[in-house]
Amino acid sequence: MTATSQRLFNFIAGEQGPWQIRSNTNLVGAPLPTASRLEVVGSCTAPLQYVSAWQLQGITSNDRYVTRDEKTALTARQPDLGRSSATCAALIALRKHSGWWGLTQDERRTIVEEQSNHIAIGMKYLPAIARRLYHCRDLAHSQPFDFITWFEFAPQDTPAFDELLKSLRRSVEWQFVEREVDIRMVQADAS
Amino acid sequence: MTATSQRLFNFIAGEQGPWQIRSNTNLVGAPLPTASRLEVVGSCTAPLQYVSAWQLQGITSNDRYVTRDEKTALTARQPDLGRSSATCAALIALRKHSGWWGLTQDERRTIVEEQSNHIAIGMKYLPAIARRLYHCRDLAHSQPFDFITWFEFAPQDTPAFDELLKSLRRSVEWQFVEREVDIRMVQADAS
Repeated sequence: MTATSQRLFNFIAGEQGPWQIRSNTNLVGAPLPTASRLEVVGSCTAPLQYVSAWQLQGITSNDRYVTRDEKTALTARQPDLGRSSATCAALIALRKHSGWWGLTQDERRTIVEEQSNHIAIGMKYLPAIARRLYHCRDLAHSQPFDFITWFEFAPQDTPAFDELLKSLRRSVEWQFVEREVDIRMVQADAS
Repeated sequence: MTATSQRLFNFIAGEQGPWQIRSNTNLVGAPLPTASRLEVVGSCTAPLQYVSAWQLQGITSNDRYVTRDEKTALTARQPDLGRSSATCAALIALRKHSGWWGLTQDERRTIVEEQSNHIAIGMKYLPAIARRLYHCRDLAHSQPFDFITWFEFAPQDTPAFDELLKSLRRSVEWQFVEREVDIRMVQADAS
């Protein structure tokens, strides 16, 4: 069952970790406590020896909305995480209200892409903005968010990233967001 | 976070529980150990005081494939679990191979319904066969199966249930199944 373990990650905010937190903004709903550093830890790692301000958990999973054509286009353009030039990161944690989860697949797909252009918007900022989505809603231990998206980009691409978020936040899909926290970081040794 | 807790269930096989196991068949892949009884326990329940032969965990989640029209038709016909006449139960635990999880949503939907008629086949046996799907793949603790489906029906509907399974098992979708265990039960006080 190693495959599943490697899909699960902990996002741990406290006083240690390679990412220095520059801002922590709650756009909708309750904020997350203040912390100075953040670390992303795979689930197989030994227990941490220090106290955290908060911890979130997420798992990478199969695609939920992209079609094969979109996937092919994304795969051709999307960069891996961990590029040396990408010294900025952002963690966007979202919770959608129950109305979203009561929709059927065709209804959710229509909102995500046909009405909100979520996939197309992300594509527009590739390969500058690397992205990885983690799912939290169906973990056994209930989580405060449904999704965590992790982004990495070079400092000069920060305005492009802000533009990307602005486009998504004014979309129909975002009307279903009942909690959103936006955390911006820089690599501690690059700050 | 009560909502999530109420979605998580444990399937515990051992020597106790209201369901008496009549058969335990592995159709593909490794079997599950033999046990005489089974209990389905919500995640909020206190720890069990007895030894189990095996435990599986699953969480109810949002619909993944049904369209609004299909959902409307299903909702109109599908019965709740727990009907007094439904003294037979079946637990079908499935794992699909990695090729399935690498498909995009449109490809999986095409296989599930347009090629395999999975939703239409289930519909044909409503309201006789009650069904609830639990997802296991994205739980934090890795599980041996991707899905558990729980069925309840009256004894006289057993041939119909066998027919339902036969139809599904010869479908294109089932070519992706790499492990399947089929457990049949009767209510202990009805046996």
